Amino acid sequence: MALVNEHFLKLPGSYLFSDIAKKVNAFKVTHPGKNLIRLGIGDVTRPLPPVCIEAMHRAVDEMANAKTFRGYGPEQGYDFLIEAIIKHDFASRGISLSPSEIFISDGAKSDTGNIGELLRWDNSMGITDPVYPVYVDSNIMCGRSGTLDENGKWSNVTYLPCTEENNFIPELPKHRVDLIYLCYPNNPTGTTLTHEQLKKWVDYALSNDTLIIFDAAYEAFIQEPNVPHSIYEIRGAKKVAIEIRSFSKTAGFTGVRCGYTVIPKEVTAASLDGQRIPLNPLWNRRQCTKFNGTSYITQRGAEAIYTPDGQKQIKETINYYMENARIMREGLKKAGFSVYGGINAPYIWLKVPEGMTSWKFFDQLLYEVNIVSTPGVGFGPSGEGYLRLTAFGQREECQEAMQRLQNWI
Amino acid sequence: MALVNEHFLKLPGSYLFSDIAKKVNAFKVTHPGKNLIRLGIGDVTRPLPPVCIEAMHRAVDEMANAKTFRGYGPEQGYDFLIEAIIKHDFASRGISLSPSEIFISDGAKSDTGNIGELLRWDNSMGITDPVYPVYVDSNIMCGRSGTLDENGKWSNVTYLPCTEENNFIPELPKHRVDLIYLCYPNNPTGTTLTHEQLKKWVDYALSNDTLIIFDAAYEAFIQEPNVPHSIYEIRGAKKVAIEIRSFSKTAGFTGVRCGYTVIPKEVTAASLDGQRIPLNPLWNRRQCTKFNGTSYITQRGAEAIYTPDGQKQIKETINYYMENARIMREGLKKAGFSVYGGINAPYIWLKVPEGMTSWKFFDQLLYEVNIVSTPGVGFGPSGEGYLRLTAFGQREECQEAMQRLQNWI
Repeated sequence: MALVNEHFLKLPGSYLFSDIAKKVNAFKVTHPGKNLIRLGIGDVTRPLPPVCIEAMHRAVDEMANAKTFRGYGPEQGYDFLIEAIIKHDFASRGISLSPSEIFISDGAKSDTGNIGELLRWDNSMGITDPVYPVYVDSNIMCGRSGTLDENGKWSNVTYLPCTEENNFIPELPKHRVDLIYLCYPNNPTGTTLTHEQLKKWVDYALSNDTLIIFDAAYEAFIQEPNVPHSIYEIRGAKKVAIEIRSFSKTAGFTGVRCGYTVIPKEVTAASLDGQRIPLNPLWNRRQCTKFNGTSYITQRGAEAIYTPDGQKQIKETINYYMENARIMREGLKKAGFSVYGGINAPYIWLKVPEGMTSWKFFDQLLYEVNIVSTPGVGFGPSGEGYLRLTAFGQREECQEAMQRLQNWI
Repeated sequence: MALVNEHFLKLPGSYLFSDIAKKVNAFKVTHPGKNLIRLGIGDVTRPLPPVCIEAMHRAVDEMANAKTFRGYGPEQGYDFLIEAIIKHDFASRGISLSPSEIFISDGAKSDTGNIGELLRWDNSMGITDPVYPVYVDSNIMCGRSGTLDENGKWSNVTYLPCTEENNFIPELPKHRVDLIYLCYPNNPTGTTLTHEQLKKWVDYALSNDTLIIFDAAYEAFIQEPNVPHSIYEIRGAKKVAIEIRSFSKTAGFTGVRCGYTVIPKEVTAASLDGQRIPLNPLWNRRQCTKFNGTSYITQRGAEAIYTPDGQKQIKETINYYMENARIMREGLKKAGFSVYGGINAPYIWLKVPEGMTSWKFFDQLLYEVNIVSTPGVGFGPSGEGYLRLTAFGQREECQEAMQRLQNWI
């Protein structure tokens, strides 16, 4: 008989956002007349930039004609997109990358989930806490996380708490770990690391031979100077870091699906006999075997983001969301809350009232002011006592939500 | 230090089709004036059906407007597409499936490559030989294939030869295996199983508690009656089989990326303590964690295939390719070759002249008649002595290729 991968059976029954969806549906059934404002899931609401629409229409037309039709594309992505990425996202910041170091994908979630395949199942890992659930869940699936203890922590995972007490800046692990996930600007706390703070991590990785998976999905929201846009702005990072990017939030691609992963040629892991194995060709082999490239139409849409008009258009949308964030930060402060994030990220991290749990306050917001949020504990043990709100909503709804909260308090 | 997944190091250096591409490029550099005819890689050449083009234009326009914009879709795919699939591909053949048994993906290659994650790494596996390389390669990556011996066979893989001697109908394994991959209509041999022949496999799986991964990517090319379109046409298959489908060849989606996987609720694998674990919720959890849905635009394109116009349009294209196959079969026979397949599949499997190897004859075709093929041994040890040609080319090129072969012989 076929035996099941027993690690899957250790997983919590459902994904955080499905639990929230169930609660919201139950509320809607029992309160049909109520006008819900959704500030929970991190999905965008503004339409795609016009340049992307035009580029995708052109690409669709190419597919209608045998002369311009495109079949299988390169599993690694088309050169036209890779070259635009290198030029705009890296060369402009003094980072030199070659085309074969970039892998276009159908989104950062796929890459974040699959990248662990390159490593042995028994590497130790570290995560900042709270964190995007995919980092831990994808590692549970291959047995790397170990077993779950009664405090909701996995035995082979080192948790690096990010709380009000340390201003959401994680401390370096006390013992070494093989693998660490960092996400900056951070989901869910909305906080960032300065150049100096990120340098500590790269230095840690260099001296401990640790591999960093750097998730930069929210890079486009950075407003302040001295916040690195790429980990490769830090000297030495090319030896120890894989960087994952996404067009989902940058340009509204959550439903179109495109992202990319950077694996510099210098990044290696060790074999059991101590050889250094470059990870770039291994990821290439993985993608060539288990992936068949991203839709041509999508890649043409993504390419358009890098035109001067595209850059202007995405900036407008990002400004729209960041103005939402400003309104929410001020509204929440006025209502008496302690708020974090929302300056270089579309997420606002809110302290729940003393003595309450995340889920309790989530329920209260849902039932008393009809606002959907995300309970912080869903992102990890140190998220308990916090709540995430996103700035991706409609302006009027953000304003209305703040009004409701101020009246309610 | 991070340790690499040592199984990746066992992989052959490159994917079959990259090796071919290198040889072809070398030829082009040394023979710049020659007109190459490509009958090697299984990529389509006809444009997308007009209904798909129209549907995708409409979907792109929806993304341009905040009122109709779509962000994250369901990881499992949109209901509109799932319902069309159930109605046309299954209910019409008397197969009853529920929407939660269908998972839309970005293509059959992704699903075929990833499905093994649900099972323990040490399950034994069987494959028909020759076979689509992804089945073996994806299992090498997680250690399931074991080690490679000097005959090019993996220690934990049971090879079921399909050759002229057994009319390309694999025998049942002599000992039981936990997991078996079947692809019908077959890539690369182009042959099929009848209802009675496939029933033997389902019965084998039922009595041996074996899980079948049934790859039906070429289902749309079936012309003859008594060739099952779905494994679920066989009684009992819902307990033992996962079926994977693709729109790549059916509707020219190789560059657009869409397919789907069926996991009936009854399909289970065992846990070490003997419990039966349904695989459907496990795959759902996998997809929700490591995948974020297929492009909305792509899914609207795929939905259009199922309209009456869509069905008419894909039939025309399939007829075009199958007429290519007929021309090629007849031309090859006239040139004195033994040919198989090409009746219910877009692939023709050709016996190479006595005493030659697949690669030798591949080179000869490339250099002497300037035709690109795929050497059979690239698909497995029993593919030695054969060559695969595909019917996806332009009509004139297929005719010209046959003329060249007849003149050459």
